[in-house]
Amino acid sequence: MTQSPTRPGNTEVTVAVCQIAPRVGDPGGNQLRIRAAVETAAGRGAQIVVLPELSNSGYVFSGPDELRASAEPLDGPTLREWKALAARHRLVITGGFAELGEDGRVHNSAALVDPTGLRATYRKAHLWNLEKTYGFIPGEAPPPVVDTVYGRIGLMVCYDLEFPEWVRLAALEGAQLLCGPVNWPLYPRPDGERPGEIVRVQADAAVNRMYVAVADRTGTERGQDWLGGSVVVDADGYPVTSLSLGQEAILTATIDLAVARDKAISERNDVHGDRRPALYTPAPEERS
Amino acid sequence: MTQSPTRPGNTEVTVAVCQIAPRVGDPGGNQLRIRAAVETAAGRGAQIVVLPELSNSGYVFSGPDELRASAEPLDGPTLREWKALAARHRLVITGGFAELGEDGRVHNSAALVDPTGLRATYRKAHLWNLEKTYGFIPGEAPPPVVDTVYGRIGLMVCYDLEFPEWVRLAALEGAQLLCGPVNWPLYPRPDGERPGEIVRVQADAAVNRMYVAVADRTGTERGQDWLGGSVVVDADGYPVTSLSLGQEAILTATIDLAVARDKAISERNDVHGDRRPALYTPAPEERS
Repeated sequence: MTQSPTRPGNTEVTVAVCQIAPRVGDPGGNQLRIRAAVETAAGRGAQIVVLPELSNSGYVFSGPDELRASAEPLDGPTLREWKALAARHRLVITGGFAELGEDGRVHNSAALVDPTGLRATYRKAHLWNLEKTYGFIPGEAPPPVVDTVYGRIGLMVCYDLEFPEWVRLAALEGAQLLCGPVNWPLYPRPDGERPGEIVRVQADAAVNRMYVAVADRTGTERGQDWLGGSVVVDADGYPVTSLSLGQEAILTATIDLAVARDKAISERNDVHGDRRPALYTPAPEERS
Repeated sequence: MTQSPTRPGNTEVTVAVCQIAPRVGDPGGNQLRIRAAVETAAGRGAQIVVLPELSNSGYVFSGPDELRASAEPLDGPTLREWKALAARHRLVITGGFAELGEDGRVHNSAALVDPTGLRATYRKAHLWNLEKTYGFIPGEAPPPVVDTVYGRIGLMVCYDLEFPEWVRLAALEGAQLLCGPVNWPLYPRPDGERPGEIVRVQADAAVNRMYVAVADRTGTERGQDWLGGSVVVDADGYPVTSLSLGQEAILTATIDLAVARDKAISERNDVHGDRRPALYTPAPEERS
């Protein structure tokens, strides 16, 4: 794996996860909401900003036509705005958006931009429920891991985080921070329990000794309630932001990404070195 | 995958996880502790009983000689006792023990016995810290998944549970309940946080919609404190036993293993069917 460039003597970075409430059918309003969130985050010292899934478009589409009308090419207004914000505030920005591909297909995508421009895009590979009926086409490429001035940052979207194999790919590529734009629907859970989506992200982080920053949406959209479970989790798997379930919030945490280069968890254990990939081949009917 | 035989009209089963305190160098005492725990569990209605890792031997060996002296072949007193207990109380018993192989090598093993006898053994494939210096040889075989009268039960040991690839193998083989004998060392954690080991088991369960029953040890052994984090987690990833951190305890839960056959989590999602194994091939340097 390639080691990321570091700033000598300082590997701390402030990450903001922006829990906002995009509205379907209101792209102009969503752009303003994102701008306000990013400016607030920058004002609080954020250097890396994470936005929710489909933050340009909202989520609960009436159907394929409404999705298609919300989708944008990579040179559309959403990524132009993010690049301008990144340049103006010296930020790395990651977030989700509805992408209209050059071939006319529509994807649930994410992008990473920094002051130099668009660094990576990604198309969600594991689609959730109605996304399949809206006409989203799943991605075929692994999660990108990008060398930034702050370290190596990986990127995937929402339900992708529930597939440990997918998270592992990013971690083995050297991601020190995995950014996850999400839209987590609100489900019932037992009294006193932390939402399972957050628990699973904690595990993603710990088994890879990698930070994970999740920006969830909030609000209610066409009757769908959202969890609002944004969180930054450290390389031990514990949250380093307080939860602000269901509320609009900009949550920040200052973390040391150098920690995530060291995979040791005991004198003789290393979460990646201890893997036994030769034994992980699934049963023949599983290979496809 | 093979469907397990079911008892018509009743798929509920009571599982007990036995949080006991084995002592190194006291095999006779350990046998009595196990017997008492199994009898207590049976008295509370348990049908499946899980014992900790290395429950016959204790854990903190002075070195390879003490380990070797504690290790037993498959026809040794420990498995003879477990088979007798299983037959007497009509139980499935899983637990960990120090195994002396026919070739003289020593393994950190687990067994599953039922009233018909020894059904499966397993050798821990991912060794923890000092286990490497004690002379344990890691296993090379995948986790077994056994058809029992109650459903399909998988088996692995402690640190194995931290490798989602390994857990996935058992789940894809149809395990409805994964039994994990563990010895979790006590580590510091942030105030108010559930131990990360339990969080990771919750994720293991949820991403596979499979029950997980972990029996941890407790007590202090040659200065080593143990977590005592035994837990049964349901297929949604939430604990169904109360935690009894650090205490000796027999914890029971009545669960419906039929739930774990259905991997659907939305109208259009299935935690196994949504996997994309063709995309999970790691980078070439990862293959070994």
